[in-house]
Amino acid sequence: MTNKKEIIAGIIIIGNEILSGRTQDTNSSTLSIWLNSLGIKVQEVRVIPDLEKIIVDNVNEFRKKFNYVFTTGGIGPTHDDITAASISKAFNLTYGLHKEAVSVLEKYYKPGEFTEGRQKMAWMPTKADLILNPTSGAPGFNVENVYCLPGVPSILKSMLAGIDHKLIGGKPILTQTINLRTVESEIAKSLSNVQDNNKDVDIGSYPFFRAGKLGVAIVLRSSEQSKINNCNSEILKFINKKNIKIVESD
Amino acid sequence: MTNKKEIIAGIIIIGNEILSGRTQDTNSSTLSIWLNSLGIKVQEVRVIPDLEKIIVDNVNEFRKKFNYVFTTGGIGPTHDDITAASISKAFNLTYGLHKEAVSVLEKYYKPGEFTEGRQKMAWMPTKADLILNPTSGAPGFNVENVYCLPGVPSILKSMLAGIDHKLIGGKPILTQTINLRTVESEIAKSLSNVQDNNKDVDIGSYPFFRAGKLGVAIVLRSSEQSKINNCNSEILKFINKKNIKIVESD
Repeated sequence: MTNKKEIIAGIIIIGNEILSGRTQDTNSSTLSIWLNSLGIKVQEVRVIPDLEKIIVDNVNEFRKKFNYVFTTGGIGPTHDDITAASISKAFNLTYGLHKEAVSVLEKYYKPGEFTEGRQKMAWMPTKADLILNPTSGAPGFNVENVYCLPGVPSILKSMLAGIDHKLIGGKPILTQTINLRTVESEIAKSLSNVQDNNKDVDIGSYPFFRAGKLGVAIVLRSSEQSKINNCNSEILKFINKKNIKIVESD
Repeated sequence: MTNKKEIIAGIIIIGNEILSGRTQDTNSSTLSIWLNSLGIKVQEVRVIPDLEKIIVDNVNEFRKKFNYVFTTGGIGPTHDDITAASISKAFNLTYGLHKEAVSVLEKYYKPGEFTEGRQKMAWMPTKADLILNPTSGAPGFNVENVYCLPGVPSILKSMLAGIDHKLIGGKPILTQTINLRTVESEIAKSLSNVQDNNKDVDIGSYPFFRAGKLGVAIVLRSSEQSKINNCNSEILKFINKKNIKIVESD
């Protein structure tokens, strides 16, 4: 359920390694959970290849459409790392050696180790704000509402704490899951009635098949705990009537 | 590297549970690996919410842009399953009870168990071709170049064998990975030269940090084994010179 007050974000995952299926993207899930906790809802995720025109077009579309845009991947030192150059192009900004990034990297490496190969990691829009990297030195960066992060999940995670204060979110999005030993068709009609009565709550129904057992996870999402509670009690009513068991987890 | 001969696909992952970060999408990686084996390259993945207008717009954009489009999710019996209705709208086709789907589901369930709640799984574009589901009965469907599959990964996987014969691919996309005990900045310049000499091969460089050890995975992708071999030997030359070790895996 989208409403006007919502603060929304889009995520752009840049990288052929994700599109080929070689690497499983986990960054969008990390970012979504973190953003939800700040009251920011992720409205769209796109996975795109390492091609400049495609990156520029998608960044320009997303930065108009969403309050915040996050990109992951393509900010390392090799030939396939073209995010920083592409973002410069998207914003029509100078792409060059970023003075503060140079100074951060000079301090990070031992004397003489900030080699030519490593200098590429300081090339970015010269006016960008840095996002510090406590894990491996090379910073991400931020231009207007676009935040560019690396693709390596552990490094990305370690950089989020440095961005929190820059984002203006809404009420945190709360979530409650009810796991049932049933099949979706048994509860579809009753659940649809609950959704009609609670239009402000996003109610999802997800079948699961684990350890040979069927079940359905019902997920309630809203920024108002009282609305989730209302929904929850309506669901408890119909599952009691139908004699459906609640199980511990999906 | 995109060239004109390539057969390209787009994937649309439909579901709030992925956007919220609750569920990790694995279907796009499954589909990409399978499509690559058929010589079809995935050019874009989008994750979008369960909202009709957004589904319709994305399907209509993708079916013009790509040879093949795959959607996952939203074909179950609950209120949040709106993929079949949205696809009908996108193609301007009648959304109704699909005769063959009814017959498939009547056979799948015991007499009397094909209840009203389950009938929704037979609602789809009435002219769609079915994609049979050997795991849980409810079929997916295909309209023109758009293939609609369920969101549950094990069910989706079991349905792919029923689609192979409908797709006209190209040469399978081959891949070779060389894992090196080095950092990207050490090899960036040499690797960039190799890419310049081998424009038809897609060369990716991916740092990894596992068990406390740094490394770089170099991934070569092309539909021509000889081109991969050329690239490989150029890479072996420079890593020998630089005295960089090959390691078993990332």
